[in-house]
Amino acid sequence: MICLIGRVLISQSTCVAVEEPGYPQARRLFRSLGASVVGVPVDDEGLNVDAIPGNARLVYVTPSHQFPLGTAMSLQRRTALLAWAERRGAVVIEDDYDSEFRFEGRPLDPIQSLDRTGRVIYVGSFSKVLLPTLRLGFLVAPVSLQPALLAAKQLTDWHGEWATQAALARFIDQGLLARHIRRVAREYANRYAQIADSLEHRFGGWLRSIPAAAGLHVAADVRPGTSVDVARAVRRAEARGVRVGTLSDFYAGTPVRAGLVIGFGAIPTLRIDEGMRRLAASFGHRTNA
Amino acid sequence: MICLIGRVLISQSTCVAVEEPGYPQARRLFRSLGASVVGVPVDDEGLNVDAIPGNARLVYVTPSHQFPLGTAMSLQRRTALLAWAERRGAVVIEDDYDSEFRFEGRPLDPIQSLDRTGRVIYVGSFSKVLLPTLRLGFLVAPVSLQPALLAAKQLTDWHGEWATQAALARFIDQGLLARHIRRVAREYANRYAQIADSLEHRFGGWLRSIPAAAGLHVAADVRPGTSVDVARAVRRAEARGVRVGTLSDFYAGTPVRAGLVIGFGAIPTLRIDEGMRRLAASFGHRTNA
Repeated sequence: MICLIGRVLISQSTCVAVEEPGYPQARRLFRSLGASVVGVPVDDEGLNVDAIPGNARLVYVTPSHQFPLGTAMSLQRRTALLAWAERRGAVVIEDDYDSEFRFEGRPLDPIQSLDRTGRVIYVGSFSKVLLPTLRLGFLVAPVSLQPALLAAKQLTDWHGEWATQAALARFIDQGLLARHIRRVAREYANRYAQIADSLEHRFGGWLRSIPAAAGLHVAADVRPGTSVDVARAVRRAEARGVRVGTLSDFYAGTPVRAGLVIGFGAIPTLRIDEGMRRLAASFGHRTNA
Repeated sequence: MICLIGRVLISQSTCVAVEEPGYPQARRLFRSLGASVVGVPVDDEGLNVDAIPGNARLVYVTPSHQFPLGTAMSLQRRTALLAWAERRGAVVIEDDYDSEFRFEGRPLDPIQSLDRTGRVIYVGSFSKVLLPTLRLGFLVAPVSLQPALLAAKQLTDWHGEWATQAALARFIDQGLLARHIRRVAREYANRYAQIADSLEHRFGGWLRSIPAAAGLHVAADVRPGTSVDVARAVRRAEARGVRVGTLSDFYAGTPVRAGLVIGFGAIPTLRIDEGMRRLAASFGHRTNA
């Protein structure tokens, strides 16, 4: 989906703004299409709209659940980003990759639903909500961009594979997707709570989890003034059978925050406690389990 | 597949040589990626290698069954094209889209199998041999190009959809694809023979079929010195429920040959005779059925 949008909107040296830290795959994709990619800092309210370069034609954001930090973009920032895009005639890609799984509160409106002038392309995926092996997703594009997106899709492969799409359509129509989301959302909420709790109790001295309201991963950053070698701890954890990411993996430039990115889409809930125990041990601290 | 190759090998203004007449979708795709696309004439031996522009970095050909004319590229031209690509450091895309269905004779070796220096990417598809809705194909690339092709695939969508690929792999492993090809090849050979026969007997005065040894369509061109309005006849045929293409649809420049392109992948064999009767009537000639 994002590749398709890139092919339509990016030509040689087009300036594309992405979140910093952000999704490395999107950054690399835009660059492979010839874009000049600029990272824009993210804080607790999301992308810093004032820091977007004036010549950006495309802004790629994950407002529901910032990847990787997990924060939601505030309403104020959403409206500011939209106003910026209108003023500059730029396009916003709103990648809502996993917010179907909410732990608390009601979601903010997507930027796309606030858009009155056709500046936003909303991108959704069935990779997180169902299965990544399906390779199915969707986009909601302004009318003005639809002919070019359709033409690019046809030139690439005419259309997506039919059997899987038809099966998914029936799965949705019969209410089975909604039922699946309700059921697994409870499970994911349990996992999130366990990990956040463990981060507070086992890592409280030097790591703090970054609150998230949705999704399939938790980020945690090193408390200011604490000296911890995150990369070494992550290597040790891997040797103990626990794989987590580091925040620095998601920076294109010099990492501003150090910390962990802990995915919980694949681990059984019952194994989280043991995983967190081993992770804490990898930091060379005794656990107080 | 071809899109992936194009993304790796085409940058702004890269010169790409394609067959004229040729596959319009490939031409449009290369152009959408920024290429400068040049048509190279095709004769009874296939692409005229001497007419390829010296600055072409990529040559797209359909040697087994030229699309749309249906002729096979001669061995002499295959070796000449390969020698040209080696001399110029260019890459050849060999699109072998439907030669699994052979009516007669043994196929010539693919250019890819003659290639000793890694100049040829062979592209195959399951769209014709099985089902276009699967969206499955494959490519055989020189080792030197594999890392870039893999990276482009991962940036686009990580990987193809798994369930369909796994089902196809099992279908092939169990020998069912080979059995399917043997069975339907007989059926397609019947259809081809009926259409070629009808072209000779019902249209003999002004159309001549272009011999093909394989595939799912027949091309026929207007005999020199005959005045026939092909486009009008095709419109009339469509009104009679018979859809065929015109050769002029496949030219980027001024069409050199006028004629028809008759696909027989979808029509039941028993309906071909009636279809050809209506087609002949659309040319305003009496049938001698």
